[in-house]
Amino acid sequence: MNTTIETILNHRSIRKFQDRPLSDEQISLLVKAAQAASTSSNIQAYSIIGVKNPETKQKLAELAGNQSYVAHNGHFFVFCADLYRHEKAGEMEKQEVTESIESTEKFMVAIIDAALAAQNTAIAAESMGLGICYIGGLRNNLPEVSSVLKTPDRVIPLFGMTIGYPDQNPDVKPRLPFNHVYFEDHYDTGEQYEEQLKEYNETVSAYYNERTDGRRSDTWTGQMAQMLAHPQRMYMKEFVQKKGFNNK
Amino acid sequence: MNTTIETILNHRSIRKFQDRPLSDEQISLLVKAAQAASTSSNIQAYSIIGVKNPETKQKLAELAGNQSYVAHNGHFFVFCADLYRHEKAGEMEKQEVTESIESTEKFMVAIIDAALAAQNTAIAAESMGLGICYIGGLRNNLPEVSSVLKTPDRVIPLFGMTIGYPDQNPDVKPRLPFNHVYFEDHYDTGEQYEEQLKEYNETVSAYYNERTDGRRSDTWTGQMAQMLAHPQRMYMKEFVQKKGFNNK
Repeated sequence: MNTTIETILNHRSIRKFQDRPLSDEQISLLVKAAQAASTSSNIQAYSIIGVKNPETKQKLAELAGNQSYVAHNGHFFVFCADLYRHEKAGEMEKQEVTESIESTEKFMVAIIDAALAAQNTAIAAESMGLGICYIGGLRNNLPEVSSVLKTPDRVIPLFGMTIGYPDQNPDVKPRLPFNHVYFEDHYDTGEQYEEQLKEYNETVSAYYNERTDGRRSDTWTGQMAQMLAHPQRMYMKEFVQKKGFNNK
Repeated sequence: MNTTIETILNHRSIRKFQDRPLSDEQISLLVKAAQAASTSSNIQAYSIIGVKNPETKQKLAELAGNQSYVAHNGHFFVFCADLYRHEKAGEMEKQEVTESIESTEKFMVAIIDAALAAQNTAIAAESMGLGICYIGGLRNNLPEVSSVLKTPDRVIPLFGMTIGYPDQNPDVKPRLPFNHVYFEDHYDTGEQYEEQLKEYNETVSAYYNERTDGRRSDTWTGQMAQMLAHPQRMYMKEFVQKKGFNNK
């Protein structure tokens, strides 16, 4: 166990920050960390927008479902899937690249690239004693978020990340049982599968029970079924296609 | 600058490994690191398959385009988007979750979750002195890869990761200019955009030139246009939809 792995294992999302902005040096180091991540065939199919303007932050906080920590933090990053520069590369080189750029394959590549870069930023930030929280809530309203951030076609904001000096110290949340997530040699849907989910339900229940003096005792399958029974963001398919992704 | 950030900035893909398997303790720690990553609303929409069987590794190496380091390394992980356990949760809780599970939104969530987990594994491995390489080549033939790994519907292998003790010491590859990837407050497609790509072309050219005694002088836009002019993996849209993703 080294300090990097300790940092990784100690991750908790931080949703309350001190009123203390990150320095430009810190921001620059976090972006460089993002850029150091692996990228499929060096395609670098992502961009990062750092939001400093308080009005823009406030607007994004509202669009993300009134999450105040989107406005109040040390810095707010938005990670985007980006194939705009690749369309440009095609133009510069007089090659027809649309078919490729609009493929589901490249949609996946751009999402993976952006996520790998983001996670580097997250780990780098946490190693500096900062806290982070991913903001998937930006996807509640991507047409508006895109317009606020002026992203062109071929660019989709995927999620935000609030970063800052923590003003809270939440617990690490228990994850699914190791053997439910990790398989050897092949996937296995045998009878242990449902047992593991029930085991995790008990773990999650105990976690909430302890933290709420028994007022809350959710299970994981209960939380998931409840969430998934109410489909969210069903505009997404049409939206990403309109932006030039996931069409072919 | 701390050791974690040094590890992150020093990333190079390693494609040649010593003949020395990872220990079960190392593997377990790398999976725990993966599980510690952020996940959208605790959905944990990914699974990891660790491949130990030499025949399976050989088969996957061939399917990934005869990349020998997929067979010869310290360990080989496959990261999968996984909404199978969420379908199960729906059944256990007698809730209808198909519409949600089959949405483009949840397809994105599962890809992001898997990528964040994978990057934690990558950084943890590198912090232990190991080298890694992502294997997107698995997506050359996902129907066969899925069958080898016995993944059910609602599970898609996204990419592999070779890990092991490095037997080479490649250079760190130069990335796109900082200001081309990082924007403040909003995206900007102004005239600097193409200039930055030209600047990067010179950097990339110089990089190859130096390393090949002038035999190679690719540019980035040239590489990208060439790659994208030949659409790859165009079966993907139909494949992921058949597996129950990205339908709604």
